[in-house]
Amino acid sequence: MKEQEFLAELKEMDLLQQALGILEWDTQTGMPEEASNYRAEVSSFLYGKYFAKKIGPKMTEAIDYFGQHPDELSEIGKIALTLVKEEYDRQYAVPNELMIEYSKATADAHYAWQKARKRKDFSLFYGALKENIRLTKELISYWKKDEETDYDVLLNLYEPNMTTKTLDEVFSTVRDGIIKLREKIETRGTKPRTDFLSREMSKEQQRKFVIKVVEDLGFDLDRGRVDDTVHPFATGINHQDVRLTNRWNKKDLTTGIMGLIHEAGHGIYEQNISEKFEYTPIHEGASMGVHESQSLFNELVIGSRRSFWQKQYPYLQKCAQGIFDDISFEDFYASLKQTQASLIRIEADSLTYILHIIIRYEIEKMIFNEEVTVEELPQVWNDKYEQYLGIRPQDDLEGILQDVHWSAAEFGYFPSYALGYMYACQLYYAMKKEIDVDKVLGSDDYSPIRKWLTRNIHQYGAAKKPNQLIYDATGEALNPQYLLEYLQEIYFSVYQINE
Amino acid sequence: MKEQEFLAELKEMDLLQQALGILEWDTQTGMPEEASNYRAEVSSFLYGKYFAKKIGPKMTEAIDYFGQHPDELSEIGKIALTLVKEEYDRQYAVPNELMIEYSKATADAHYAWQKARKRKDFSLFYGALKENIRLTKELISYWKKDEETDYDVLLNLYEPNMTTKTLDEVFSTVRDGIIKLREKIETRGTKPRTDFLSREMSKEQQRKFVIKVVEDLGFDLDRGRVDDTVHPFATGINHQDVRLTNRWNKKDLTTGIMGLIHEAGHGIYEQNISEKFEYTPIHEGASMGVHESQSLFNELVIGSRRSFWQKQYPYLQKCAQGIFDDISFEDFYASLKQTQASLIRIEADSLTYILHIIIRYEIEKMIFNEEVTVEELPQVWNDKYEQYLGIRPQDDLEGILQDVHWSAAEFGYFPSYALGYMYACQLYYAMKKEIDVDKVLGSDDYSPIRKWLTRNIHQYGAAKKPNQLIYDATGEALNPQYLLEYLQEIYFSVYQINE
Repeated sequence: MKEQEFLAELKEMDLLQQALGILEWDTQTGMPEEASNYRAEVSSFLYGKYFAKKIGPKMTEAIDYFGQHPDELSEIGKIALTLVKEEYDRQYAVPNELMIEYSKATADAHYAWQKARKRKDFSLFYGALKENIRLTKELISYWKKDEETDYDVLLNLYEPNMTTKTLDEVFSTVRDGIIKLREKIETRGTKPRTDFLSREMSKEQQRKFVIKVVEDLGFDLDRGRVDDTVHPFATGINHQDVRLTNRWNKKDLTTGIMGLIHEAGHGIYEQNISEKFEYTPIHEGASMGVHESQSLFNELVIGSRRSFWQKQYPYLQKCAQGIFDDISFEDFYASLKQTQASLIRIEADSLTYILHIIIRYEIEKMIFNEEVTVEELPQVWNDKYEQYLGIRPQDDLEGILQDVHWSAAEFGYFPSYALGYMYACQLYYAMKKEIDVDKVLGSDDYSPIRKWLTRNIHQYGAAKKPNQLIYDATGEALNPQYLLEYLQEIYFSVYQINE
Repeated sequence: MKEQEFLAELKEMDLLQQALGILEWDTQTGMPEEASNYRAEVSSFLYGKYFAKKIGPKMTEAIDYFGQHPDELSEIGKIALTLVKEEYDRQYAVPNELMIEYSKATADAHYAWQKARKRKDFSLFYGALKENIRLTKELISYWKKDEETDYDVLLNLYEPNMTTKTLDEVFSTVRDGIIKLREKIETRGTKPRTDFLSREMSKEQQRKFVIKVVEDLGFDLDRGRVDDTVHPFATGINHQDVRLTNRWNKKDLTTGIMGLIHEAGHGIYEQNISEKFEYTPIHEGASMGVHESQSLFNELVIGSRRSFWQKQYPYLQKCAQGIFDDISFEDFYASLKQTQASLIRIEADSLTYILHIIIRYEIEKMIFNEEVTVEELPQVWNDKYEQYLGIRPQDDLEGILQDVHWSAAEFGYFPSYALGYMYACQLYYAMKKEIDVDKVLGSDDYSPIRKWLTRNIHQYGAAKKPNQLIYDATGEALNPQYLLEYLQEIYFSVYQINE
């Protein structure tokens, strides 16, 4: 077999994925309501073609042949083969019947989850969740390598080479650190005012402002676009076509503005993966965690800096056409960083958010270490919220039923959010050694920041594993201290705590 | 072979076409500028899959087998097989090399046409046009059936069963009739004022008005959508997803308003083809001419009626927020039907438009009857404009170079526009025997009109040939008198001519 045959097959798979990407984007942004059944037929037809190639004879041949003749592959060919093989082996390790049972179970579980939410009653989800866990454990038994724990297997589905051992250390440090920070803020902090954040700013006014901001940050609108949707996402169709979606709330400008700044981080990543990887599985993010690190770098690192808002606030006031003229910059900036314990993860602020993740991580680990029964989960969930955040859910809807992930059997996914946050802060401190970030954020040219991220992260796509990528970019392995240091800097300044 | 195998293959072809339809719609409505090369790769990949099926072994088998066992097919299966076979035979009749030569020639011709336009110089297009004609004649030689003339073959590519013989009679009647009408209007008509039509009405104001109008006319926005584009079109992705596109000119409301009313006619057709034909080649329009008859029924039949505008004008005034408050209904209505000879087809009014088509028809016929050399064409073109419209192009750009069709070797296409117009008027007089159209247009419920068209035209899709469809709907074959009668009614009333 020739390398070009292998690459040609990868390209056809990519072309099918591009079509599927546009169809999915269209489904989420404006497909006529009544068309969903027809759309499902088209998408599953094309997905079938894609999947047939993914595990098809050409891939088998390529994996066998180049396994014996690695020297006949270029550098790109070698990396692509590794990525392809990981997926391929994972597929073939599992009996088909199990995969079918699994996808049926998750479909039922999603339905049960929705019913349970309506009734705010975990017991209606209990059976389905138990089944999802059982089947996931069965999958693990086929995937598990010697040195791995069961939960390691799940982690690696989303974050290659990440281990429970590492996360245990990292998360306990972060958890204790954040709890300490929150105590100081409670006792010694001055609460910012936030009343004016609900002043009405139209979608058009918000959009005008944030479109300029994401362009400043480096999102290229000649190679992308921005549309409205219900559940915001970013999608990289190809190197020249990266699409952001957003939702707006005219009574809460942070929803739309911080939301699009977040998605733009994903988009800038996709726009700056090296073109030489196009049409291969290398032309995508290194992992869920690394992708999230780019969106959170925008939203929580840059989006938390006084220097950034000092520069942007006058334009925001202009776009708001007078609504904020009576609000000083200091008041406005502080209002963005108010922190308060909340029960719902997706409503959490940038200080408490990570505690929501750690709670889920600890519970998932207990599940797969057989340290808890499914019946006990709501109890455990509520206790941890009380223990870490000092508030207790009144029902399962604002507790264990709030997230969709477990109904899809996506165990091991949640840590990606926290990893992204920690990566983002670690990248910031590494960047600061080379760039005066606040000076750049005060200027009219943000490109040094975007270029640093492209040089150190974006360009590599999936060519490096996350741990390697972060090590090469920052000179050390994942280190949670940077997150704590960053949170302390931001929140102590906003809450006027000196020490 | 089983019928369901045959239908399953047709369905897969349709699924590919749906994906291609969305990709094309996306390309025209908002794909990032820089993405066109990537998009071309995806589309041609999927088109290749589609084409391979269209002429592939499954089709060969189906045509052979069911050719001998027609009784094993359902009614739908039988019609589908006929449609498939027409395309299939047309493909296989022609040597592959010729098709390749043909598509290369048309690509070159398009480029030459654009260059010639820039220089307003036909001689730069001459060679390419000559080549397009030569290759088209070669194609004809493979497709021609005994009784057909060369030009019949071209006509039938767009309008099955239409003949040059019929068009000669019809067009000479229409041409002479319109020329007479125009003389009376010139000599005895009172010219309406039109100055206020250029008053600025924003896109949002125009859109608000016309969206309600197209919904009144029967376009279902739960099963469709409306987007902006440069070259407006309507596309039926599937039964539940029909998309209109439009362009707007705030200094000329007729562009956007009449444009969308026109596209809605295509859209309403696509939305009302019987669902039982879904996933077969029957689920589309009967021909170019019939499709155009539905858009022109909206734009030129309904859109020309006093009763329609009497009902809609107050809402237009409301949407225009005062701009037209000083304009009486009579003045406004009359302004829409002003007529004036023009050199450019797409800018022509509803009275002179058809003369532009007849000129192209006569010239195309001369070409394929070898009655003219390519060198002589600009001369012939200009003479005919002078003879029929009384104006003469000053250069080739406002003359023979104005339309793209010949650069794509689309000979035989132009008559569809005129056929659509004649069908539309003939349908109107047939409808009037059952429905008081003006009463309906004066009411809040236009559905009787839409339902009549669905009952007589829409539902059949491509199950009937155009001539059969028109005969069944109106009780007679194509009759140009209805067009002339309609034009006289409208224009004599607007120009206040009594006889």
